[in-house]
Amino acid sequence: MAAEKRSKGGSGNLPRAVVLVSGGLDSATVLAIAKADNFDCYALSFDYGQRHRAELVAAKNITQAQTVSQHHIMSLDLTWMGGSALTDNAIPVPAHTQADTAQIPITYVPARNTIFLSVALGWAEVLGANRIYLGVNAVDYSGYPDCRPEFLSQFQATASLGTRAGVEGQQIQILAPLITLSKKEIIIRGLSMGVDYSLTLSCYDPDAQGRACGRCDSCGLRRQGFEQAGEDDPTQYQV
Amino acid sequence: MAAEKRSKGGSGNLPRAVVLVSGGLDSATVLAIAKADNFDCYALSFDYGQRHRAELVAAKNITQAQTVSQHHIMSLDLTWMGGSALTDNAIPVPAHTQADTAQIPITYVPARNTIFLSVALGWAEVLGANRIYLGVNAVDYSGYPDCRPEFLSQFQATASLGTRAGVEGQQIQILAPLITLSKKEIIIRGLSMGVDYSLTLSCYDPDAQGRACGRCDSCGLRRQGFEQAGEDDPTQYQV
Repeated sequence: MAAEKRSKGGSGNLPRAVVLVSGGLDSATVLAIAKADNFDCYALSFDYGQRHRAELVAAKNITQAQTVSQHHIMSLDLTWMGGSALTDNAIPVPAHTQADTAQIPITYVPARNTIFLSVALGWAEVLGANRIYLGVNAVDYSGYPDCRPEFLSQFQATASLGTRAGVEGQQIQILAPLITLSKKEIIIRGLSMGVDYSLTLSCYDPDAQGRACGRCDSCGLRRQGFEQAGEDDPTQYQV
Repeated sequence: MAAEKRSKGGSGNLPRAVVLVSGGLDSATVLAIAKADNFDCYALSFDYGQRHRAELVAAKNITQAQTVSQHHIMSLDLTWMGGSALTDNAIPVPAHTQADTAQIPITYVPARNTIFLSVALGWAEVLGANRIYLGVNAVDYSGYPDCRPEFLSQFQATASLGTRAGVEGQQIQILAPLITLSKKEIIIRGLSMGVDYSLTLSCYDPDAQGRACGRCDSCGLRRQGFEQAGEDDPTQYQV
């Protein structure tokens, strides 16, 4: 992939898409898919007070490596709200427990995907983009309610009613191309498109050097994914 | 109404509600309704880069006068996105044009209510609140797509699917008690509950002293509302 960044303002006559890029393995793959779908990509990341701030560095590296027309990192502090191990220092990040989809884990950030999709929706309207891509998947979703397909369909219906684009008959589509894929399948798909996973960070609790803990749910799923795909995991783990 | 502020952390055993308070006439009325409905109120305002920042001062004054358990003003900069006269200095605020509901006005901020409701939803989850009150109305909504009842119903369906509360069977209700009221009716209702409208600001383009312009759509609707209600308008207008 070309390393240079396209000038702000878009690339020619391609249709535009907003792509949510968290810095993780999934969203790096989704960005590659959006580009393969021939969209002019506008990447959006959130500085929401997450403990693992190294993921914003990863997001920056991913969008630079893959070339996007613009990458905006929006400040959107959710720490004041509390309620999640990912934003509240009083709640410890649990060790890997094997994702139990019957329980919503403490790493769930209340309404996070609803909030992030809403901002993406506003930007898509301003840009005249007709797609929003995001990297959620229902197989490895660890019980997060806002990663389910039925949530995304409902959000799209809300988006149609709540925006100028929707009222004027232009649908903004919410695309989650990984929704039914396992981590193994995501990795195989990404590697086939040349995604550099050494740039991505999945860990909920990395150290100051940005190395993954190797113990949290997210590290567990990532490790297993590379193993099952029969591919080398380029991640730097602490353990 | 009592002037003292309740201690952070809620008031006894009352059920909790999150109330969106913009600083305008409508949301001041809605807060009074939520309190009359016997809810322990948590007020939420947004510093989204609006030109008329005097409205945040108004929001603070309203929540102090009416007593809430907590008032959070969240920084949520939407100016980078552009696309609205309310957040983009390159787009002038138009003079009053008599609300034309067939056209979406340039003061519409893309996906604003979707974004604000999403944050309210996250906070409601953390608080265990089962209601979100907001002051939109469909009569005077000036063509904003995200002020329509069908949008709010859809958002509630999305909220049920995207949150822990929804998954666990506890519905968070979205209430817009002004949705079918005219400005005249809102004012009459608010005055009957003792709302002090001198604390509120409706103008899209106030001056440095916080005085309303008297020319924008919002000033036009407010003035007309007080006239039709046969009540004195306590607003300080420039013209």
